[in-house]
Amino acid sequence: MPLSQLKHERLGKTVALAVFASDPLSSVAYATEEILLVLILAGSAALSYSLPIALGIAALLAIVLISYRQTVVAYPQGGGAYLVARDNLGLPSALTAAASLLIDYVLTVSVSVAAGVDALTSAAPALRPHRVTLCIVAIAGIALGNLRGVRESGRLFAAPTYFFIVSILGMVGYGLVATAFDLLPEAPYEPHPPGLEGISLFLLLRAYSAGCTALTGVEAVSNGVQALKAPEGRNAQKVLTWLGVISIAMFLGITYLAYDFGIVPGGEETVVSKIARRVFGTGLPYFAVQAATMLILLLAANTSYADFPRLSSILARDRFMPRQFASHGDRLVFSNGILILSGFAIALLVIFGGETHALLPLYAIGVFISFTLSQSGMVRRWLRLKEKGWRWRMWINGIGAVVTAIVLLTLAVTKFKEGAWIVVVVVPLLVFVFIIMHRHYEEIAVELSLEGLEGPPQFQHTVLVLVGDVHRGVVRAVQYSRTLVAPTAAVRGVYVETDPARTHKVEEKWAKWGLGVPLVVLTSPYRSVLRPLLEYIDSIQSRGDDQMVTIVLPEFLPRKWWQHILHNQTALLVKGALLFRRNIVVADVPYLLRR
Amino acid sequence: MPLSQLKHERLGKTVALAVFASDPLSSVAYATEEILLVLILAGSAALSYSLPIALGIAALLAIVLISYRQTVVAYPQGGGAYLVARDNLGLPSALTAAASLLIDYVLTVSVSVAAGVDALTSAAPALRPHRVTLCIVAIAGIALGNLRGVRESGRLFAAPTYFFIVSILGMVGYGLVATAFDLLPEAPYEPHPPGLEGISLFLLLRAYSAGCTALTGVEAVSNGVQALKAPEGRNAQKVLTWLGVISIAMFLGITYLAYDFGIVPGGEETVVSKIARRVFGTGLPYFAVQAATMLILLLAANTSYADFPRLSSILARDRFMPRQFASHGDRLVFSNGILILSGFAIALLVIFGGETHALLPLYAIGVFISFTLSQSGMVRRWLRLKEKGWRWRMWINGIGAVVTAIVLLTLAVTKFKEGAWIVVVVVPLLVFVFIIMHRHYEEIAVELSLEGLEGPPQFQHTVLVLVGDVHRGVVRAVQYSRTLVAPTAAVRGVYVETDPARTHKVEEKWAKWGLGVPLVVLTSPYRSVLRPLLEYIDSIQSRGDDQMVTIVLPEFLPRKWWQHILHNQTALLVKGALLFRRNIVVADVPYLLRR
Repeated sequence: MPLSQLKHERLGKTVALAVFASDPLSSVAYATEEILLVLILAGSAALSYSLPIALGIAALLAIVLISYRQTVVAYPQGGGAYLVARDNLGLPSALTAAASLLIDYVLTVSVSVAAGVDALTSAAPALRPHRVTLCIVAIAGIALGNLRGVRESGRLFAAPTYFFIVSILGMVGYGLVATAFDLLPEAPYEPHPPGLEGISLFLLLRAYSAGCTALTGVEAVSNGVQALKAPEGRNAQKVLTWLGVISIAMFLGITYLAYDFGIVPGGEETVVSKIARRVFGTGLPYFAVQAATMLILLLAANTSYADFPRLSSILARDRFMPRQFASHGDRLVFSNGILILSGFAIALLVIFGGETHALLPLYAIGVFISFTLSQSGMVRRWLRLKEKGWRWRMWINGIGAVVTAIVLLTLAVTKFKEGAWIVVVVVPLLVFVFIIMHRHYEEIAVELSLEGLEGPPQFQHTVLVLVGDVHRGVVRAVQYSRTLVAPTAAVRGVYVETDPARTHKVEEKWAKWGLGVPLVVLTSPYRSVLRPLLEYIDSIQSRGDDQMVTIVLPEFLPRKWWQHILHNQTALLVKGALLFRRNIVVADVPYLLRR
Repeated sequence: MPLSQLKHERLGKTVALAVFASDPLSSVAYATEEILLVLILAGSAALSYSLPIALGIAALLAIVLISYRQTVVAYPQGGGAYLVARDNLGLPSALTAAASLLIDYVLTVSVSVAAGVDALTSAAPALRPHRVTLCIVAIAGIALGNLRGVRESGRLFAAPTYFFIVSILGMVGYGLVATAFDLLPEAPYEPHPPGLEGISLFLLLRAYSAGCTALTGVEAVSNGVQALKAPEGRNAQKVLTWLGVISIAMFLGITYLAYDFGIVPGGEETVVSKIARRVFGTGLPYFAVQAATMLILLLAANTSYADFPRLSSILARDRFMPRQFASHGDRLVFSNGILILSGFAIALLVIFGGETHALLPLYAIGVFISFTLSQSGMVRRWLRLKEKGWRWRMWINGIGAVVTAIVLLTLAVTKFKEGAWIVVVVVPLLVFVFIIMHRHYEEIAVELSLEGLEGPPQFQHTVLVLVGDVHRGVVRAVQYSRTLVAPTAAVRGVYVETDPARTHKVEEKWAKWGLGVPLVVLTSPYRSVLRPLLEYIDSIQSRGDDQMVTIVLPEFLPRKWWQHILHNQTALLVKGALLFRRNIVVADVPYLLRR
C-alpha cells in the first residue's frame, strides 16, 4: 500500500469498533472463568463472591476507559503507552512501557489462540489431546496470512466481531429471560469439589486479579486513533464508550449466568461453553456461540501482527531496536517481525502446554504496567500544559493511574509464583537491551559524523584476480578488472600453487589469455590455498595504511541448486577468511553456466 | 605437514604393522561372538559347530591375505579397490568399489566404536544404559582430535596395538595351559537357551557369513603401501603375512576357548569379556584385556579418519565428488570430511541403538564387494600384462576373487533382511550420484574451455554506490569507487527515498561530501528499498548485453559479534536479491567501527 493511499482509507466508527474491539472484547471469553477458578479453591459456596468481584472489575474497566478517552483526544496521531510515557515521563518509563507492550503482544497471540482452541475443544472434546498442535497450526496460519500480505481489512474484521457480540449478548439475554420464566431444563449434576482453603482477603484479591484479564486489549484503540475518520479524537472517544458498554454488558452477563446456573469451573470445557450448553442445549445456537468465540479470539491474536511491527518500528526509529525494524517496505524486513512474534508465541504455548489458565498470570501484569504508565503520563501532561479544564482532566487520569497501579501491585503479589515473576524479570532485561542498543547507535552516529572530517581518505589500489585455473570464467573476471580499473591501480592475477606439476600449464594458458595482466604465483608448501594468499595480502598492506586491496573472485552461477555445492567452495573459503578485514574489498564476478 | 617432509617419514615394518593392524585385528573382538549368536538359535548343542566354521573363516582370511600380497607389490603407490578396479575393470566396477568403501569407512567408525563401548560396558555394566551417549562422546573425541590435527603417529598407534596382541594372545595361551592342567575354578552356571530352529545348511551359512566380519580391515594395508620404507611392496607383503598369522591365531584361540568353556553368547557381556573373566577372574589382567580391546577398537575407528578423506580426494580428483574434497591443505576443507564421516557414523549408531550386532550385517557386505572387485581386477591385470609368473599369480587372485564372490553372495542372501539390503540400495545410489557429478563437471569443462574463444568479452561499466545516509563510511566507499575506477566507467551514488522528508538533507550532505559523483534519487512509493534499485539496474542493463553493473555497498565492521545484527541488514537484503544475477558484481567496502 503506498503512503499516499493510506490517508484515504480511514475507518468509520462502526467498522472501527469491529477492528479495535476484537482484542478487548475477546477477553470476556476467559475472564469470568479465571475468577471462578480462584474462588472454587475455597469450595463451591465461595463462587457467589464472583458477583461483587465482577462489579469491581467492571468499575475498573469503566475508569480505565474514561481515562483513555482523554488520551485519544490528546494524542490523535496514536497514543500508545510508549509514546505517552516518552512524551511526559522520560525514557526509563517509556522503555518500561515498550518492553511490557512487546511482551504483551506476544502473549496476546499465545493466550488468544489457546483460548480459541479451548472454545473449539469444548465443542469437540475429541480434539483436546491435540491442543498444542492446533495452537501451532493456528499461529502458523495467521503468520502465513500476514506474510502473504493479507492486511486488516475493515469488512473482514467486522463480520466475526459483530457475530460474537450478537451471539454472546443473545445468549445472555435469552438466558436471563429463560431463567426468569423457568424455561430451562433441569441442570445436569456437576460434582462440587470441596474447598481446599478458607475464604480470605488474599483469595478474594487473587480472584480480582485473575478477573483483570478482562481489561486486556483496551490499549488497542489508543494505538490506532490515526486510522479513524476525522475528527479522529472525538470518534475514538465514541468507539471507546461503545466498547466499554458492550464489554461490561457481556462480562457481567456471563458472570451472572455462571453464578445463577451454579457453574463449576475447570475440567475440559470452558465456562462460556457450559453456559451456552445450558441455555441452548447442544444445538446449532450452541455451536454458533463457540464458533463466534473461537473466531474473535483468532482475530484478537491477529491484531498483534499489526501492533508488534508498529511498536517495533517506532522503537527502531528511536534507535532502541535494530534499524531494520524501522522500515516495513520490503517484505523480507516485515517478515522478520512476523516470524519473531510467531516464534515466541509458539514457544510460550509449547512451554505452557497450550493452557490458557497457565498463560494468563503472565498476560495481565504487562497490560497494567502500560496502563499505569500511560495514565501517569497523562497526569504529567495536564500538569505541564495546563490546557482548558486541566484540573478535572488530571483528576480523571490520576484516579485511573492510582487504581491501575494498585491493581498492578496486587497482580504482582498475588500472581508472582504463578508466572508473573517471568514478566518482572524479562521487562528490565528488555529495557537493558534497548539501552545497550541505543548507546551503540549513538556512539556510531558520533563516529560516523562528517563533522571534523578533513577530506576523503587516500587510497593506493591493488586488484587481485584469484586464479584457480585459466578458463572462460577467469578470462571474464580479468577483463572485468582490466577495463573497470583506472591505470593508477595495479591489477594482478594470483595463482596459489598447490600442485607444482600444474603450474607450468597455468602459466602457459595465462600467457595467452592473461590479457596483459601480470600473474603472481604463490608457492604453498602446506598445500593450503588460504595461507599464501593472506600472507601476500599482508605483504602488500604492510606498505602503508592507504593500501586498499580488492580481491576479484570469478564465481560460477550454476543452473540448478544442487550444483552449487560442486562449485565456488574455494571462493567461499576466501570470502570467509577476508570478511571483516580492514581495507579489503571482495568482488564476485559471476559467470553464468548454461547447464 | 609439507609435501617434501612426507617422503622422509616412512614407517618401519614393526610400526607399520601397528598402524595398519588396528583395523583388521580389532575385528576378532566381535567375530567369534557373531558366529555363536547365529548357532545358539539352534540351541547350545549347535555351538560346537563354531570350530569348523572358524577354521573355514581362517582359511578364507589366508586366501584373501595371500591374494592381497600380490596387490601390494603390483600397486606400491597404493592399491585400494577403487584404483585397482579403475585400472583393470573400468569405471562401473571402480565406482561400485568406491561406494562400498565409503560406506565401509562410515561403518568402521560406527561398528568399532559400538564394539569398543561393549568392551567397556562388559567390564562396567552400570554404564550400559548410556551406551549410545558413550558412542557419541567417543566419536566426538576422535573427530575433535582429527580436527585439531592429531595425525597418525606411529608410536602412538604401536603401544595399544601391541598391548592388544599381547593381552589377547596371553589370555589365549594361559587359557589353554590352564585348561590342560585343570587350573581354572568351576565355571559359573549359565542358562542354556533352548534351540528355536533345527541345524540347517542355511543356519551354518549364516553363521559363516556372520564370522566373515573377522576379515574387515584387511584393505587397510593395500591402501597404505606408500607409507612403508623401501622396498615398499616387499615390506607390505611381510606386514600382511604377520597380520595374517597373528589375526588367525587370535581368532582361532578365542573361538576354541569359547567352545571349550561352553560360553553362551548374548546378554550384557561380550564373549571376549566372558572368556577373559573365566581365565583371569575379575582381576587386573581381566581389566587389561577389556581396556586393550576398547583401545584398539577406538584406534580402528580412527583409521577411517585417514581413509575416508584419502579416497574422497582421489574421487574428487577424478571428478566424481565435489572438487573441494580434492585438496587437504586448508583446515576448513579437511574438516568437511571429518564432519561428514562423524555425522553419518553417529546417525547410524543412533538409528541402531548403538548395537554392534545390529550394525554388523551392513558392514561385511561392503568389505566383500571391494575384495571381489579388487581381486578380479588383479586377475585382469595378469591377463593383460602377462608379467613373469603371471599364470600362477592369476590363479592365486582368481581363487581369491571366486571365493570372496561366493561369500559376498552368501552374505547378501543370508543377511539381506538383517540390514544388508540397505547397502544393496545405497551402493547403486552413490554410484549414480558420482556419475551425475562427473557428467556435470565434464560439461562445465567443455563450456569453460578456452578453445574457440575469440576474444575477451566487452564491458560498459556502471558503478553504483548505495547510499542510505551520508556518513564517513559512505564517503569512504565513494572515494574508493572514484579513485579505483577508470574514467570510462560511470560512477553514481544511489539513494532510495523511503521517507521524502529526509531526501533534502541527504542531498545537501551529498553536495558537500559526494566528491563530485552524481547522486541518483529513486522514489519508492511502497517504501521498499529493493524494488526501485532493481528497476534502476534493469533500466541500465536493458541498454545491452555488455552492461556490467558494480554495486558498491558501504558496510560496517563492528567490534563485537552481537553488533552485527544492528548493522548491514539492508546490505544483506541487497546482496541476497542480486546474488546469482548476470553481469552484476557486488563489492563490500568495509568501514571499521572503533566501538
